[in-house]
Amino acid sequence: MDFLKRLKAAPRLWLGLDPRPERYPDAAAMRAHLFGVVEALAGVVGGVKPNLAFFEALGAEGMELLFALSAFAREKGLPLLFDAKRGDVPSTAKAYAEAYLARFPGAAITANPLLGRDALLPFFEAARAHGGMVFVLARTSNPGARDYLELETERGPLWRAILEDLEALNAKYEGRAGAVVGATHEGALEAARAVFSGWILAPGVGAQGGKLRPLERVIYPVSRALLYPEGRADVEASLAAARAFLAELAD
Amino acid sequence: MDFLKRLKAAPRLWLGLDPRPERYPDAAAMRAHLFGVVEALAGVVGGVKPNLAFFEALGAEGMELLFALSAFAREKGLPLLFDAKRGDVPSTAKAYAEAYLARFPGAAITANPLLGRDALLPFFEAARAHGGMVFVLARTSNPGARDYLELETERGPLWRAILEDLEALNAKYEGRAGAVVGATHEGALEAARAVFSGWILAPGVGAQGGKLRPLERVIYPVSRALLYPEGRADVEASLAAARAFLAELAD
Repeated sequence: MDFLKRLKAAPRLWLGLDPRPERYPDAAAMRAHLFGVVEALAGVVGGVKPNLAFFEALGAEGMELLFALSAFAREKGLPLLFDAKRGDVPSTAKAYAEAYLARFPGAAITANPLLGRDALLPFFEAARAHGGMVFVLARTSNPGARDYLELETERGPLWRAILEDLEALNAKYEGRAGAVVGATHEGALEAARAVFSGWILAPGVGAQGGKLRPLERVIYPVSRALLYPEGRADVEASLAAARAFLAELAD
Repeated sequence: MDFLKRLKAAPRLWLGLDPRPERYPDAAAMRAHLFGVVEALAGVVGGVKPNLAFFEALGAEGMELLFALSAFAREKGLPLLFDAKRGDVPSTAKAYAEAYLARFPGAAITANPLLGRDALLPFFEAARAHGGMVFVLARTSNPGARDYLELETERGPLWRAILEDLEALNAKYEGRAGAVVGATHEGALEAARAVFSGWILAPGVGAQGGKLRPLERVIYPVSRALLYPEGRADVEASLAAARAFLAELAD
């Protein structure tokens, strides 16, 4: 399973997995619901995007759940995008790449570019070796994106400098570079597209209020509004919500 | 155990825990060595800094090892600094803060500021609630720090804008903000000190070639050169290496 090939063929809607223990009576109920949603949405969404923070918050058991749920999603034919936002010096970045891209061939990861291009390369090398992809943060969906990502630099706004470098990496790694660009900022996707031709992961739709639009090479992860539609952990409601989002995309 | 109070009283040398499975015949040998080094260096180093990447690379078992080793270090009186370099939108950053700062009261974490100040606040709130600290990346020790952290912005080099904001956070959170500034760049620690008065974590000494100097409010994490001195996993050699580094600091 090659992530890039799957991406081209799959629906643009992705299921974000941000499990919240307070929604369940116990850990077994949470586990059953998460497996149930993944099973129900296989063939409906393009893939699953587990956000590692919510699994780490559950301790070592949470990481066991992450790996088991990821293996299950793959069995069901769903590609995996680990929303890890990892970034460290090169020798450490290599360990992060091993942890997710080598362990799950054909998976993608989100990476933080603050430490520079040398620190991104281990992710790209692992993506090439294992049929994966790397989505690099360029302009995030939160208001704080203003503080540094939108800061004016000698190369234009920081997000644009990051996207220009990513465009070069995308050429070198034959399409395996993606960008994370929040759909919450007016015109952000179009502005990103002007400098970056690769795939864009556009968070901020659903609970955060952005809209799903059928743009070329843009995928939309939806977490809360798909996993807990109207605040409920209910597999049928998740399926209905996914179909509503897909209809929005098809308009 | 309050991290900030411990920091003021403890030696400036910190033990970095970056376990490399290829150094051991099996997982049991690795575990025994890691616990052995932590026990031998309690009372010698200021605390331990596990780098999460190397534990995550070992899968769910690695995370179990991380939490067990962290609990053991605490029993031995060693403060914990989780080198996680996490950063995400605020609601997700809160989950990361819970995963480490709430789970281990009195611990610190490293955080990535790229997503802006709103995304750092959950870490600071958790640090205040649980007697912890947050060390924010400002200028990392790798050559790639040039790409974005040293980029000239409307607020000066990006690292300086980050440190200025951190100085304000440090006032608001009463000393609980630290900065990560690589000791590998000539004059970087002095330049950082000119704008930031709080504690600095200065990686890049030991295997990366930087020097340990007895500067005010600067701590030095050493990983490979303390955990595997001369390439060996040997507790006695680690103890000797720690004493040599401490002598360098006392000069």
